[in-house]
Amino acid sequence: MPNFYIQPLDQKLAAAIQLKLDSKTKPVGALGSLETLAGHVALIQQTLTPQLRSPHVLVFAADHGIAAEGVSKYPQEVTYQMVLNFLSGGAAINVFCRQQGIALKIVDAGVKGSFTEFPAVINQKIAEGTRNFLHEPAMSITQCEQALAAGAKLAREVAATGCNVLGFGEMGIANTSAATLLMHHLTSLPLTECLGRGTGLDDDQLTHKAAILTAAAQQHTATSPLEILAAFGGFEIVQMAGAMLAAAEQGLILLIDGFIATAALLAATALHPAVREYCVFCHQSEETGHQRMLTYLQAWPLLNLNLRLGEGTGCALAYPLLVAAVSFLNEMASFESAGVSQSTTQTPVTA
Amino acid sequence: MPNFYIQPLDQKLAAAIQLKLDSKTKPVGALGSLETLAGHVALIQQTLTPQLRSPHVLVFAADHGIAAEGVSKYPQEVTYQMVLNFLSGGAAINVFCRQQGIALKIVDAGVKGSFTEFPAVINQKIAEGTRNFLHEPAMSITQCEQALAAGAKLAREVAATGCNVLGFGEMGIANTSAATLLMHHLTSLPLTECLGRGTGLDDDQLTHKAAILTAAAQQHTATSPLEILAAFGGFEIVQMAGAMLAAAEQGLILLIDGFIATAALLAATALHPAVREYCVFCHQSEETGHQRMLTYLQAWPLLNLNLRLGEGTGCALAYPLLVAAVSFLNEMASFESAGVSQSTTQTPVTA
Repeated sequence: MPNFYIQPLDQKLAAAIQLKLDSKTKPVGALGSLETLAGHVALIQQTLTPQLRSPHVLVFAADHGIAAEGVSKYPQEVTYQMVLNFLSGGAAINVFCRQQGIALKIVDAGVKGSFTEFPAVINQKIAEGTRNFLHEPAMSITQCEQALAAGAKLAREVAATGCNVLGFGEMGIANTSAATLLMHHLTSLPLTECLGRGTGLDDDQLTHKAAILTAAAQQHTATSPLEILAAFGGFEIVQMAGAMLAAAEQGLILLIDGFIATAALLAATALHPAVREYCVFCHQSEETGHQRMLTYLQAWPLLNLNLRLGEGTGCALAYPLLVAAVSFLNEMASFESAGVSQSTTQTPVTA
Repeated sequence: MPNFYIQPLDQKLAAAIQLKLDSKTKPVGALGSLETLAGHVALIQQTLTPQLRSPHVLVFAADHGIAAEGVSKYPQEVTYQMVLNFLSGGAAINVFCRQQGIALKIVDAGVKGSFTEFPAVINQKIAEGTRNFLHEPAMSITQCEQALAAGAKLAREVAATGCNVLGFGEMGIANTSAATLLMHHLTSLPLTECLGRGTGLDDDQLTHKAAILTAAAQQHTATSPLEILAAFGGFEIVQMAGAMLAAAEQGLILLIDGFIATAALLAATALHPAVREYCVFCHQSEETGHQRMLTYLQAWPLLNLNLRLGEGTGCALAYPLLVAAVSFLNEMASFESAGVSQSTTQTPVTA
């Protein structure tokens, strides 16, 4: 099991940050959640003048043995095809990253098929997809540890280039099934509260998915976070969890996307709870279960746009709010510097 | 009364737009509200390839006679001081417009004090603030018509420069009081549902504001939208309403900010209902009453960040989502172009 040393956030600057927020030329608290966000980023970076540098989104792709059970609307080859779509710049995450100047890296964590012709794909393939967790653990404990380490290594490499804000995306046909069972086992919430329509199952297809996942949940006796990850995880999910832990260890801001990425975070927090303190929750997905995850994590999402795409799209869409939060903290005038009168309850009126 | 000719949106492209949205390499509907937004922008522009050009935010500033009744936490001179803060680039709206490449124009619609030394301020001053609507109409019908025309003229001038997306902001101490009474009279909702804490009144101050506005509401017999605007409006609110009507007439996308801007829109829709069809509702304010306004307008806001600042800040913060919506519609690959398999319910599986 790889080691991680994640510091809980030092709160010593909290009062000074609040004072700076309240000195800005606006009613106290009038920028609402952006003020909370600005304060959070400042605390993560332990400074009154935070900076966002070289933002990245890492998209981890992998295939899932459970796809054989018909739990997704899409055929398994779509994972491979979508990686090629990422490479040619045609997917939603490409568009949103270009718009925001976010660097995008595509990781083969365990896709069926070879990308040797495509050197832009970062090769961290653990295997050609997981095994079918309806019958056996999705991966061995050794593979799970390898995947955690591979994700962590990549996050450390990206951090070493100067990046201090990192989003996590994924692609993997059937990975809402994996995420559902991870959530169920890591939170102890009933399976029905963890289950959703994924890419758009109809009622009959959802009933089938529920039956498969109920049967799969009964197959396994996993209890530790590592065993649960190995039993149900996808290689992309485990690599994301490792990358999140390493990113928090490096003091980065973590951008958390939707249902799958938050499932990876649930696993990461089960291993090292302090990782939670570095997270910005980018949006609330339309996928049933994501709201429950956010409540479980006591997380407040920036956006609520009924997204259910994954790929890290929520991270890229929320990123401008992060820029706005940091910018107003650094650039807005204070009442004093702008010569603007304070509110009458703060400045006693003599009359 | 100025004339406006606002076309209801032609729906003839709606089916083709939906087809284009559904051809993109993502599950149908997976970009949620961004898809609705992309479709809306395409319909406003009557094209499958919409473009955002030269975005502007106009900030209209004016003073209010009702400020004399102590309904705001801030002294009246803050309106003037904040205009200077806008000029020197230190306010929140400056920061967010810089971040997004949005042009910002500051309009003196009726501020107490002279800006002759500051040519960057667009001088559309109707008077040095409104009269106190606790005792008399805030402005004459003639002034109200002048203000509508002045706002409209400015919006037409901006549109003529090539701008096709226009946000509306405001600054005016005590203008939540004006907006509250406009809302109350234009929607017939009870005053208590229209009333809020503005820049941050405490319970006693809110009780005082409620008493003043209840008394003011009983002073006036205004029934037509124009009479209501004249009775309670601020010059910034009326100029905004005029600018909104002219912008819709020109086929622009209108970015609607918070409580005050939405009050201006309520008046604009009372005059010309079709203006509503050109509006993107940028956020839901923390100000009590704004949610009610949005419900009344059957509007769905893009952001919900507990903002209560005004200045058009919500427009600038939501603008990147507009860019994202237009970009994905134009730039994402289709299933066909990317060679990605469709869902199995769309492509029958033979096996």
